[in-house]
Amino acid sequence: MEEKSPSTRERILDAAIEVFASKGYHDTRMDDIVEMSHSSKGSIYFHFPSKEEIFFGIVDKFANLLEKRLLQVLETESSGIERVHRALVVCLDTFGSHQALAKILLIQAVGLGQDFEVKREQIKDRFAALIQSQIEQAVIEGEIPALDAEMAAQIWMGAIYDIVMRWVSTSQLSPERMLPTLQTMLLRSIGVSDEKIEQICR
Amino acid sequence: MEEKSPSTRERILDAAIEVFASKGYHDTRMDDIVEMSHSSKGSIYFHFPSKEEIFFGIVDKFANLLEKRLLQVLETESSGIERVHRALVVCLDTFGSHQALAKILLIQAVGLGQDFEVKREQIKDRFAALIQSQIEQAVIEGEIPALDAEMAAQIWMGAIYDIVMRWVSTSQLSPERMLPTLQTMLLRSIGVSDEKIEQICR
Repeated sequence: MEEKSPSTRERILDAAIEVFASKGYHDTRMDDIVEMSHSSKGSIYFHFPSKEEIFFGIVDKFANLLEKRLLQVLETESSGIERVHRALVVCLDTFGSHQALAKILLIQAVGLGQDFEVKREQIKDRFAALIQSQIEQAVIEGEIPALDAEMAAQIWMGAIYDIVMRWVSTSQLSPERMLPTLQTMLLRSIGVSDEKIEQICR
Repeated sequence: MEEKSPSTRERILDAAIEVFASKGYHDTRMDDIVEMSHSSKGSIYFHFPSKEEIFFGIVDKFANLLEKRLLQVLETESSGIERVHRALVVCLDTFGSHQALAKILLIQAVGLGQDFEVKREQIKDRFAALIQSQIEQAVIEGEIPALDAEMAAQIWMGAIYDIVMRWVSTSQLSPERMLPTLQTMLLRSIGVSDEKIEQICR
C-alpha cells in the first residue's frame, strides 16, 4: 500500500537532510535523494519540482519545529519575562540538537541567492513577530518600561540570528558560553533588572 | 600627464559605484565601468582583474571609511560609554550618507556566494574587535560590570548589522527611529543605567 502523502514528503525531506549533510547541497543530485529516500523519481518530483524546493521544504520543516516548540513554551509559562527566558533556551536547544541541519540551512544556503534571502527574511520576520508580541505583553503586564517593541524585536532577532549563525558555522562558541551572556544582555536591553534576571535564569 | 595609481583606482571605484547603483551589479559589464570612469580597459584590468574584484574594492573602501571615522571618534571622546554612543551615531550616519552604496554592498552582494560571505565575516569581525576593545575599556574604567566582552561585541555586531541591513533594504526604518531604541538597548545590554543613558544621549 502506498504511504499517505505527508509521510512520503517527510521521508524525502529526511533523506535530503542526510544527503545534503554528507555531500553538501551543491554536489547533491536529485538521484541521490531518490536513492536515499527509497522513493521513486516520480514521487519526488511530484512533491518537489526541484532541489531548491526540497531545500525550502527543509527550511520550513525546521522553522515549523522551532515555532511549535516556542509556542508550547510561550503558552505554559506565566510571567512575560520568564516566557522570554524559556523561549531563548528552547531556541538554542533546538539549534543545538539539530546542528547538522542548522549548518545546512544557514551555511549551504549562501549560494541560493535572492530566492533564499527572501525566504530567510520571511522566517526572521515571523520569529521577530513572535518576539514582539512577548515584549509587548511584558510591557502590558508592567514588567518592563514602554519601548518600540517592533524595533526591539528586530534587534533581538539580529543578535540571536548572528550568534546562532556563528555558533553553527564555527566551533568557537558553545551553548554553555552563549546562553548566560545572550540572556543577560537581551533581558537587560528591554529594561529587566540584574536582580530579576538572576532570579529568572538561575 | 597620467594620474598617480591611487587616484586612478579611486576613479574606477567611484565610477563602478555609479554604474552598480543604476544598472545593478549583475547587469553591469566591465565595459560600462571603463566608459563611466574614462579609463582604458587596460588600466581597469591592471587594477582589478574582475568585476568581483571591483566589488570587493568598493567593500574595502567603505569599510575603511567607516573604520577611519570610528577611530576618530574613539580617540577624541573621554568616557568609554560616551565613545560607544558617539560610535553608534557615526555608524548610522555613515550608512545614512552613503545609502545607495550601502544598498549595493549589502543587497546586491547576495549573489556573490561564498567569497563574499568570507569577506563579510572578516569585516564584521574587524568591527566586532573594535567594539570589544571599547567594551573592555568601559569595564576597566569601572563604568560597567564585568562581562564576556567578545560575546557582547558579537551580539552588538549582529544587532547593528541586521538593523542597518533592514534599513537600507526596506524603507521601513529611519535613523531617527532606529538610533534612540538601538542606543538604549545596546547600552542597557552591557549594564549602563537608564539615568546614565539619558545623560549621554540627550
